[in-house]
Amino acid sequence: LILIGEKINGTIEEVRAAVLSRDAAYVSDLAREQTAAGADYIDVNVGTGLGDEAEAMVWALEVVRGATELPLCIDSSDPEVLAAGLESFGPEKPFINSATGAAASLEKVLPLAARYGSPLIALAMDESGIPPSPAARIAVCQKIVDAACEAGISDKDLYLDPLVMPLSADCEQGKVTLDTLRAIKLELGGVRTVMAVSNVSFGLPLRSVVNRSMLTVAVFLGLDAVITDPGEKGLVSAICSAEAVSGRDRFCKAYMKAFRADMLE
Amino acid sequence: LILIGEKINGTIEEVRAAVLSRDAAYVSDLAREQTAAGADYIDVNVGTGLGDEAEAMVWALEVVRGATELPLCIDSSDPEVLAAGLESFGPEKPFINSATGAAASLEKVLPLAARYGSPLIALAMDESGIPPSPAARIAVCQKIVDAACEAGISDKDLYLDPLVMPLSADCEQGKVTLDTLRAIKLELGGVRTVMAVSNVSFGLPLRSVVNRSMLTVAVFLGLDAVITDPGEKGLVSAICSAEAVSGRDRFCKAYMKAFRADMLE
Repeated sequence: LILIGEKINGTIEEVRAAVLSRDAAYVSDLAREQTAAGADYIDVNVGTGLGDEAEAMVWALEVVRGATELPLCIDSSDPEVLAAGLESFGPEKPFINSATGAAASLEKVLPLAARYGSPLIALAMDESGIPPSPAARIAVCQKIVDAACEAGISDKDLYLDPLVMPLSADCEQGKVTLDTLRAIKLELGGVRTVMAVSNVSFGLPLRSVVNRSMLTVAVFLGLDAVITDPGEKGLVSAICSAEAVSGRDRFCKAYMKAFRADMLE
Repeated sequence: LILIGEKINGTIEEVRAAVLSRDAAYVSDLAREQTAAGADYIDVNVGTGLGDEAEAMVWALEVVRGATELPLCIDSSDPEVLAAGLESFGPEKPFINSATGAAASLEKVLPLAARYGSPLIALAMDESGIPPSPAARIAVCQKIVDAACEAGISDKDLYLDPLVMPLSADCEQGKVTLDTLRAIKLELGGVRTVMAVSNVSFGLPLRSVVNRSMLTVAVFLGLDAVITDPGEKGLVSAICSAEAVSGRDRFCKAYMKAFRADMLE
């Protein structure tokens, strides 16, 4: 499982302030902390709703690249911001987070992924919003897969996100997401999958308990990447043990390694 | 999910000693403790390898019935012990744990379940041992379902156990069990399922982490009953949160109730 560290995100109050004041030390610390915790990629999202997001992205990417050698994940809903970030990179291949199935998004973001050879995260939603059923989400995913193929993006570089919604608003939402994930793996060939689990527990107490179960089932169903806090031991425990019980950890080697590194609880 | 409390089991050293010395206080305490922790049934297994198991079973059932009003689960691999236990009961309907697909077991145990109207646990194994693949375990399950139907046992009273084996011996065993569970639910109609999860983590460190993931995935796949320690907060957390993310907990009511009762961690 690829672990994308989620903590540099402009929607979090402290990060927002750091981005707006260009506080490089704060952002560097978040990058280093997630690197030490075992992240594979560092997500960089500077969407604060204020100022020039493209300029902020170029600044933040430079700061983060000075703090970690990990590959990054450029995160914005604005294709211009993605383009500015990618442009600043040179030959590296950061993750692009994200496109949707909306025509305007596909038209602008797919060529970026193709041009830079970047893995691309695409959300199972389009102009009409978030489809309510697994079948409708799969239809959007199929549209994305077709467009990506036409744009010359290989299946293994496309990460579909089945979208995680809060159970507190609708108690069927966990199942809708997990059934969509299963259908992507079964019906859409070699395409990859990614999820940010924590939304599922919004509004519930002991959120980590719910997040842990959501991630455990997703790993069993074949999830390829997760966007989360790599320092949260409960989630790392869920990943390692779920891979073990799902036959995805030969000789339980990764589980034993995580245990010895005191990463489990 | 039906929770069957596993702690009165003669293979546990302290319980073995209590059974052999007919220590009613010790056995009663285990029954009361599991009742308070929220068990739905109390399993009674007096297999110590010494003395008259049938006589010990009748003694233990009387002790446990004096300590709790919960229904019981009579647990022995010996049909004579099951018969003696059932005989001592009168009109109640305890769970019978267990039959296997072996002809000798089916011949002796199915008539007991039919006669007493008891729900029956049956293991996915037979004379040839434990089948290595999900397909072979399903073949044994099908044989059990057919024999149970012929004996007049309704599908809803038959609980098939896909068998949980240690990952430390073979890292594919979690997947074999979970794939068998999924196939039982998909292919064998209205039959129920049961599992004792803790065997999966035998030989690994932080066993509760692995047990928790195994149980979480099993609940998502439709597990109907679990044999476990109802006092283990991690497993109760796994059950409640797995039911929530699987769409099996309307309005997250059971999760909220468990949270308020301080049963989660």
